[in-house]
Amino acid sequence: MQGTVAQPRAAIVSVGNELLYGETVDTNAAWLGRWLGELGITVVRRFTVGDRRADIDEALERALEAADLVILSGGLGPTPDDLTKSVVADHFGLGLVVVDSVVRRLEEHFRAGGYDEVPPLSLGQAELPEGAIPLRNPSGTAPGILLSRDRARIVLLPGVPHELRDIAAGDLADELDAWLGPESRHRAHHRVIHTTGLAETSLAQRLEPRLQALGREMTGGVDLAYLPDLRGVDLRFTLAGGTAQEAAERFDRLLGALDDVLGPWRFEGESGDIADALSVALRARGWRLAVAESCTGGLVGKRLTDRPGASDVFVGGVIAYDDAVKVDLLGVDRERLERDGAVSEAVARQLAKGVAERLGVETGVGVTGVAGPGGGSDEKPVGTVWISTAVQGDVEVTLHRFAGDREAVRERAAQAALASLYRRLTATSGSD
Amino acid sequence: MQGTVAQPRAAIVSVGNELLYGETVDTNAAWLGRWLGELGITVVRRFTVGDRRADIDEALERALEAADLVILSGGLGPTPDDLTKSVVADHFGLGLVVVDSVVRRLEEHFRAGGYDEVPPLSLGQAELPEGAIPLRNPSGTAPGILLSRDRARIVLLPGVPHELRDIAAGDLADELDAWLGPESRHRAHHRVIHTTGLAETSLAQRLEPRLQALGREMTGGVDLAYLPDLRGVDLRFTLAGGTAQEAAERFDRLLGALDDVLGPWRFEGESGDIADALSVALRARGWRLAVAESCTGGLVGKRLTDRPGASDVFVGGVIAYDDAVKVDLLGVDRERLERDGAVSEAVARQLAKGVAERLGVETGVGVTGVAGPGGGSDEKPVGTVWISTAVQGDVEVTLHRFAGDREAVRERAAQAALASLYRRLTATSGSD
Repeated sequence: MQGTVAQPRAAIVSVGNELLYGETVDTNAAWLGRWLGELGITVVRRFTVGDRRADIDEALERALEAADLVILSGGLGPTPDDLTKSVVADHFGLGLVVVDSVVRRLEEHFRAGGYDEVPPLSLGQAELPEGAIPLRNPSGTAPGILLSRDRARIVLLPGVPHELRDIAAGDLADELDAWLGPESRHRAHHRVIHTTGLAETSLAQRLEPRLQALGREMTGGVDLAYLPDLRGVDLRFTLAGGTAQEAAERFDRLLGALDDVLGPWRFEGESGDIADALSVALRARGWRLAVAESCTGGLVGKRLTDRPGASDVFVGGVIAYDDAVKVDLLGVDRERLERDGAVSEAVARQLAKGVAERLGVETGVGVTGVAGPGGGSDEKPVGTVWISTAVQGDVEVTLHRFAGDREAVRERAAQAALASLYRRLTATSGSD
Repeated sequence: MQGTVAQPRAAIVSVGNELLYGETVDTNAAWLGRWLGELGITVVRRFTVGDRRADIDEALERALEAADLVILSGGLGPTPDDLTKSVVADHFGLGLVVVDSVVRRLEEHFRAGGYDEVPPLSLGQAELPEGAIPLRNPSGTAPGILLSRDRARIVLLPGVPHELRDIAAGDLADELDAWLGPESRHRAHHRVIHTTGLAETSLAQRLEPRLQALGREMTGGVDLAYLPDLRGVDLRFTLAGGTAQEAAERFDRLLGALDDVLGPWRFEGESGDIADALSVALRARGWRLAVAESCTGGLVGKRLTDRPGASDVFVGGVIAYDDAVKVDLLGVDRERLERDGAVSEAVARQLAKGVAERLGVETGVGVTGVAGPGGGSDEKPVGTVWISTAVQGDVEVTLHRFAGDREAVRERAAQAALASLYRRLTATSGSD
């Protein structure tokens, strides 16, 4: 492909009865929308049709009316209900021809699987519309297909999500690069910053005046998106055009100027998971962690063990759901518990301290609160959560009021517990 | 609405830039596909367009060509980028008129929120296309809208998923019932049976020969779908046509004849969550439960406390991730642990027994295994998990080999732990 496209527009055609009937959620179309957006290509229309020739053909026609780039996904398999390739060929009056490079790839694939030859049904996957280019599928047998007609590009991708993504990130990305031209002013560069502990609006109230004050030299051309979920808010900075190197330098300068307003809410870590960031911070000090959970019921432990990385820093802990467990296993004072209630500063303090001492580790985290929907009172409404952290015997306790239903309160409480200890460790280490 | 529609076809128009750009995955369209399918209405086409008048109008036109029922979702809010209602009215040459019942509902909504009057921007939500019927939105301010033009029905729903579902399951279901007619031969009746512990293929190998043997009188017209996830397989039996009463009788007879092949894998409970079923079984005996988790790291406790229901039967437990915790808190024999390893029958046995004794409750569950990706060996590959249950001091231990990645192994292990105790409680109670 060659030449530069002024303002590229894409349409997506998703093929499959299972999509219409709702048996499958179309995550491919959403993924393609984000991926194309990063290349500076705007998706302007999506069509979803079943496995019927006439319906696929009509959607292709409409898509070509609306866009320069049409991506069809699904219906590329070897069985008779896979119609997409044949419909596209017929639409443009093209025959299907066997492409040798695809035959060889199929032979390799099936030999590696212990077959002597390619099964006849699968050999059909080497047939492409005349003039089309195969796009390598590293993980499956159906190649992607690229067809150029005048200024338009038509791309066929298999519906299996990881195959679609592998082809897109591989051969298709190269072809689209060539199509968009090397100096594309549309290409988007991103930098994502993870934060936790501040709501989207509070973050914006801190960030937006600073961005205003920094002026156009610093912020010109940079878009900022707030991406919130129950665990925190990711900040996605986007800059269109230029090289990756230039963008990285712009992002570095801008984030340097935002450092103090993002302050303690920002955390490091590629995965964006505060549990990973906490594991790294503990490992750096050679410290271990134990948890004492009441209202989260095991969620903090689950989060720490979701990935294998925490096994050398996380020893375990106690799910102290019932008050008797708090007293028996963690040494919480029974009189204090009866006087102040389980959701109280004093009990929270004893949870973190008790579990760290009992298990003989340097740090502990405690959580006790009202997750709801029942159990709230005027004084301690649903969402009231005390979080405690113990670091070498020194305990800090904070009171939170989390919004949302039971799941939201528990997710936010677990996140805040992990973040509280992370902040203590990174603040005292002098970094950030 | 009146009359009966022969073979109803639906088209869905999803409106919103966020869908095209992939910032939001269109779960509404999939949900509507399933929901309409249950009413006997087939979705034949889906269109996704951005917040542009011309694009919404064109999609509406195409949708009306393809279907009798067109559902537009999204773009019903009070702000200027919410265009759907206005486009639909213009499309049919209809003015917008204020509907008093909606005004009153808005007044109630805002009064409950502490406002003296409805904000002017929100008052616009009381304007409907002439002749349209408002569909009650129990949880938001934008009502659904139903418009009848000749034989076609056009429905507008807000894009917020829970609002869309509430309206569909409420007023819209009634209107579609009337449209389809009371004796619809398309209406589908369902019975869902929850199972856990057998893979989809193993279930099918048991069920399909029996279904064959039962013959058409028993199985005629009944469709069976296997719906697997990490926690088990739901069986959805579907029967089209007839009354709900007739279908219930057919299902009862059929399931009675399948009782012995479904055997212990079936479990009761509306939510389909074995944690709920276990809570009910414990409560029936007045017993309590404690957990001792190694590789699941808190997941079993989290599952038991996801819903508020378990608080009277679940006391908590120990996350014994590190071996020292197994020894210190649960009395696991250190020599045995060193000889057999943490992933062993002997250690599993001591986990369930130890935690139940230590916390003074009638039942205990223990889990120890290799969740991966590291830590596997020839003898104990990734996926090896020992599960133990203690019931009044009597311990049973089972060995499992779970397939999949770390998350899958942990999910399956937690599920199997809950199911193991559930089966012991329901088997000994004689209630199946």
